[in-house]
Amino acid sequence: MEGVDHLAHERSKAQFDVDEMKIVWAGSRHSFEVSDRISRLVASDPVFRKDNRTMLARKDLFKNTLRKAAHAWKRIIDLRLTEEEAKTLRFFVDEPAYTDLHWGMFLPAIQGQGTDEQQEKWLPLAYKMQIIGCYAQTELGHGSNVQGLETTATFDPQKDEFIINSPTLTSSKWWPGGLGKISTHAVVYARLITDGQDHGVHGFIVQLRSLDDHLPLPGITVGDIGMKFGSGAYNSMDNGVLRFDNVRIPRDQMLMRVSQVTREGKYMQSNVPRQLVYGTMVFVRKTIVSDASCALSRAVCIATRYSAVRRQFGSQKGGVETQVIDYKTQQSRLFPLLASAYAFRFVGEWLSWLYTDVTQRLQAKDFATLPEAHACTAGLKSLTTSATADAIEECRKLCGGHGYLSSSGLPELFAVYVPACTYEGDNIVLLLQVARFLVKTVSQLVSGKKPVGTTAYLGRVELLMQSRPNVQKAEDWLQPSVIVEVFEARATRMSVACAKNVSKFPSLEEGFAELSADLVEAAVAHCQLIVVSKFIEKLQQVIPGKGVKEQLLNLCYIYALFLLHKHLGDFVSTGCITPKQASLANDQLRSLYSQVRPNAVALVDAFNYTDHYLSSVLGRYDGNVYQNLYDEAWKDPLNESVVPDGYHEYVRPLLTQQLRNARL
Amino acid sequence: MEGVDHLAHERSKAQFDVDEMKIVWAGSRHSFEVSDRISRLVASDPVFRKDNRTMLARKDLFKNTLRKAAHAWKRIIDLRLTEEEAKTLRFFVDEPAYTDLHWGMFLPAIQGQGTDEQQEKWLPLAYKMQIIGCYAQTELGHGSNVQGLETTATFDPQKDEFIINSPTLTSSKWWPGGLGKISTHAVVYARLITDGQDHGVHGFIVQLRSLDDHLPLPGITVGDIGMKFGSGAYNSMDNGVLRFDNVRIPRDQMLMRVSQVTREGKYMQSNVPRQLVYGTMVFVRKTIVSDASCALSRAVCIATRYSAVRRQFGSQKGGVETQVIDYKTQQSRLFPLLASAYAFRFVGEWLSWLYTDVTQRLQAKDFATLPEAHACTAGLKSLTTSATADAIEECRKLCGGHGYLSSSGLPELFAVYVPACTYEGDNIVLLLQVARFLVKTVSQLVSGKKPVGTTAYLGRVELLMQSRPNVQKAEDWLQPSVIVEVFEARATRMSVACAKNVSKFPSLEEGFAELSADLVEAAVAHCQLIVVSKFIEKLQQVIPGKGVKEQLLNLCYIYALFLLHKHLGDFVSTGCITPKQASLANDQLRSLYSQVRPNAVALVDAFNYTDHYLSSVLGRYDGNVYQNLYDEAWKDPLNESVVPDGYHEYVRPLLTQQLRNARL
Repeated sequence: MEGVDHLAHERSKAQFDVDEMKIVWAGSRHSFEVSDRISRLVASDPVFRKDNRTMLARKDLFKNTLRKAAHAWKRIIDLRLTEEEAKTLRFFVDEPAYTDLHWGMFLPAIQGQGTDEQQEKWLPLAYKMQIIGCYAQTELGHGSNVQGLETTATFDPQKDEFIINSPTLTSSKWWPGGLGKISTHAVVYARLITDGQDHGVHGFIVQLRSLDDHLPLPGITVGDIGMKFGSGAYNSMDNGVLRFDNVRIPRDQMLMRVSQVTREGKYMQSNVPRQLVYGTMVFVRKTIVSDASCALSRAVCIATRYSAVRRQFGSQKGGVETQVIDYKTQQSRLFPLLASAYAFRFVGEWLSWLYTDVTQRLQAKDFATLPEAHACTAGLKSLTTSATADAIEECRKLCGGHGYLSSSGLPELFAVYVPACTYEGDNIVLLLQVARFLVKTVSQLVSGKKPVGTTAYLGRVELLMQSRPNVQKAEDWLQPSVIVEVFEARATRMSVACAKNVSKFPSLEEGFAELSADLVEAAVAHCQLIVVSKFIEKLQQVIPGKGVKEQLLNLCYIYALFLLHKHLGDFVSTGCITPKQASLANDQLRSLYSQVRPNAVALVDAFNYTDHYLSSVLGRYDGNVYQNLYDEAWKDPLNESVVPDGYHEYVRPLLTQQLRNARL
Repeated sequence: MEGVDHLAHERSKAQFDVDEMKIVWAGSRHSFEVSDRISRLVASDPVFRKDNRTMLARKDLFKNTLRKAAHAWKRIIDLRLTEEEAKTLRFFVDEPAYTDLHWGMFLPAIQGQGTDEQQEKWLPLAYKMQIIGCYAQTELGHGSNVQGLETTATFDPQKDEFIINSPTLTSSKWWPGGLGKISTHAVVYARLITDGQDHGVHGFIVQLRSLDDHLPLPGITVGDIGMKFGSGAYNSMDNGVLRFDNVRIPRDQMLMRVSQVTREGKYMQSNVPRQLVYGTMVFVRKTIVSDASCALSRAVCIATRYSAVRRQFGSQKGGVETQVIDYKTQQSRLFPLLASAYAFRFVGEWLSWLYTDVTQRLQAKDFATLPEAHACTAGLKSLTTSATADAIEECRKLCGGHGYLSSSGLPELFAVYVPACTYEGDNIVLLLQVARFLVKTVSQLVSGKKPVGTTAYLGRVELLMQSRPNVQKAEDWLQPSVIVEVFEARATRMSVACAKNVSKFPSLEEGFAELSADLVEAAVAHCQLIVVSKFIEKLQQVIPGKGVKEQLLNLCYIYALFLLHKHLGDFVSTGCITPKQASLANDQLRSLYSQVRPNAVALVDAFNYTDHYLSSVLGRYDGNVYQNLYDEAWKDPLNESVVPDGYHEYVRPLLTQQLRNARL
């Protein structure tokens, strides 16, 4: 961040205290301090450079990632980083690696599903990285439907062992990160079979590779599944394929916290409630929502800064052109994404609270709120990841042609982000789960069952089926209560309509199947209401700092009114608002864009991202875009020689009309 | 296509004559025959294999592309291919290369803007590829605004030469394909300056590299601009950067068909109408629309076949699961894209007619329909490329996790396609041009000026402001006249509203600037109407073949009703349809999906794509997906060794707790 600040003028226009906004974004002064310190530490370490990533061939990229992972672990040990700091460091290293799965899936699986003895045995090994683990669930033929997995774990009472086997090609484990080349162990999900009986899918700890020479153990076929989207992106990860040819493991390597197999081969349930798995799901999905706000804010930061640097049109005869951020088309595409970044940040924060709440209730064996919490996190995972994936690509387009260059950072950000729409629950499948929950909630209203948590509003169904907002002029939209009511009314009416239409079919299942597209839309309406409400709730708290709350309020209105316009059909056709009110909302939106405009660059500065993390020439803090684009170009391997490799064999024969004789 | 056909059952369900549909898709029996023969020729030639493309490092990828381009040229000569066949061959080689710009931009620029003498001199050289050319227009700081280009061409009357110069960093030419490493010549766009006077941007033929040793000529700095989106994609192309340090060229290398500089340095306009450039634009954009239908149909073909192979959920205890294509959520996402592919195909066909019509009129110096034709092609370029880019990504998501693998073909297809949204006119900038034309057309109605061509419907403004469709039950939507009227009404009301609102601002320019987001939406409404109308017009022709027309009619209704649902806010808030009618349209849509379902695989077979062209394991004709995914995985470079490179340096020290001593 040295030298001239080309964006200084933009920064001087901000009408709020950026340092205070940084605290709000980080969640607390402490979080800000940790993230600020660790991100700079990573940025200043040459081992962690990533600007050359897209130019590396697969093997070099992978080797370099191994190096970074080892270096990160060394730094964590040398600097005696806390768990929070270590996690932050891995986050800012910002390169998918086998360690993500070791820490993020393998360890939690043992913590969640292992008995105390199993935890005592395996966790210390894993904590010290004396073993490296992955999470082997999905198979070549089986993803969303976990109950359809084909891998078997058959108990052999004679030897007190399980025999893990891949009976078909489609039962090959496929996708697990870290599996392909690195993991020594895996938690493998397989159908438990005792005495010829299938007890469904359970988890088993299986050693895959020798700790001496890293070779696969007998009966194990393992490898990488090949290139994925993007040039860097997830190609630094060894997503793997794994087949078992009757591999034997001791009985005590079945994860037995919830169910057990005895020495005699008897299958038993423990008294630990099965609902515990939902707690883990809530945890994983809250992380995904918070990651969404990071990826989205990163793309928005790049697009906003570049939109302030880039000028096009609007001058007469060679004068200074207009900054593209001053165009209303640019604003109407960019600012709702900026608002979404803040919205997702705050709903992620709220999900952390929800997770704590769920955990405490689970400990007290209170399962009443669990289905609602589960539906809510499933829906928010779906909503935020889909919106973020689309938004990254929109930000890329907002950067015009230069957004297509790898050095813009956006192609890689997109390629590395999009799997979030599929993993941990396909986004459409998740929305259908939410919709089923909503329909169920609505149909139980007549029996007097009170909806809880984020569905509480459905308890006011009669009011919400009738309500009409009191909006007569554009400014009338600037009332949180009006916004919330309109979103509640829309979500209610769509859920009620679905419940009604589903009930017309011969069976509920048939109704759900036929109307699934409508159900998905009702679920989206519900989830958007949650995000809008939580944004508004956040603003009801005390938020210090000059102008900070005012900016957030503007962004909150932009988020809501943008959604209202985007889903206008929902709102108008259910009679929640009139066409006239919709038009007033649009007028208000334009005026809000004008208010955000002078603050836009400062609002993305508040994310406090280093240039290293952004990894984008277009998003540089100092706005010195063109010189750096130019300098960056010459680093491409093709520029190593003036006359390119292949010219003499394949171009010269054309030019000299010697093609007929050429050997190609 | 040998061995077992896993999709045979799907194919047997088709209710129409696939071979006849192939002719309809190709446009004529002749086109089908050429495309079928040439695509097989390319597919069977080992030099043209592309399955290894994403694994190659940049330099190897580039060299391989040079090889393919030379081989393609050799085949064209050896087999004495016609121009049509040669073009088809380059299309099916399906790898961006310098030759695209040589044939697609360099030659047409000289044909369109060169005098007869210039054409006589340069075209034979270019036709034989004795010189290789590119099209150097955009600059580092200047894209959409061509009038803002900074490169100068100053006439030196003493030496009868132009001095081409890059006065600033931002004036560096940036992006031209084929420029970076290969082109020997370029058509360079620069501000013409004679006697201190700036005459705006003109084209000049400039030699860049020596024909002896391929080194850049004195004063020329040229190179590649670096990696772009995706791992293969456009990285096979040498998009370049170019700077001129007072490079001199003879006066007769200015393209002088439309304007000239005399020996004395006098700037003159010729009597050739400037409108000719619009003819070229119509040509280029018609090609882009037809390419959109190719890219979209390719993605849809992959997603449809895989959706018929993939099974998930729906079984009890290990039985056969449900094909994902049977889920209504999958259908409601996939079938509208299938319908769009056909819709774009037919509107592309119509644009070919329009181009012929425009050319004939230009020759007769009839410029009356030109603005309308220009707006229409600009809008259709924007509409079809944006929809196609989104659709490819949607198809990728419809393939679940496996769509993220490079071997699915979809990541590369997306990465190689998306620049179409930006090049040849940024899609939003183009829509604003359309909107301006619409507003102008509307405001001229009062003066009695009759709108022509695709805007003719605006002549019935009074009727369309009032019209209400006679739709009382779902089947009432199955009437072409009803569909067209509803789309006309919506487009009219949105254009009229824009015209009205724009006129409320102090100046028209201010109104256009403030309301640009609304204007874009009105333009989209107009363009969608065109696509819907042309689809319907196509179906009014005689179309032979059992069941062919019935299938196309279903797809046409799906396309229209899908848009109606997607843009429900437009239709309902302008009062074009009632919420009840919208709901009936949705019911009809579901029923149409059920009718398309048994024909889906056959409808994508009708595209007649070879497995080579699709380049997708998921989209294989024979549906043998899993075995081939599995086999493909082992080809990744990471699988060359069992223990990966880097293990000993960066993984073993962790496992053995020797990290402290390790050198990283």
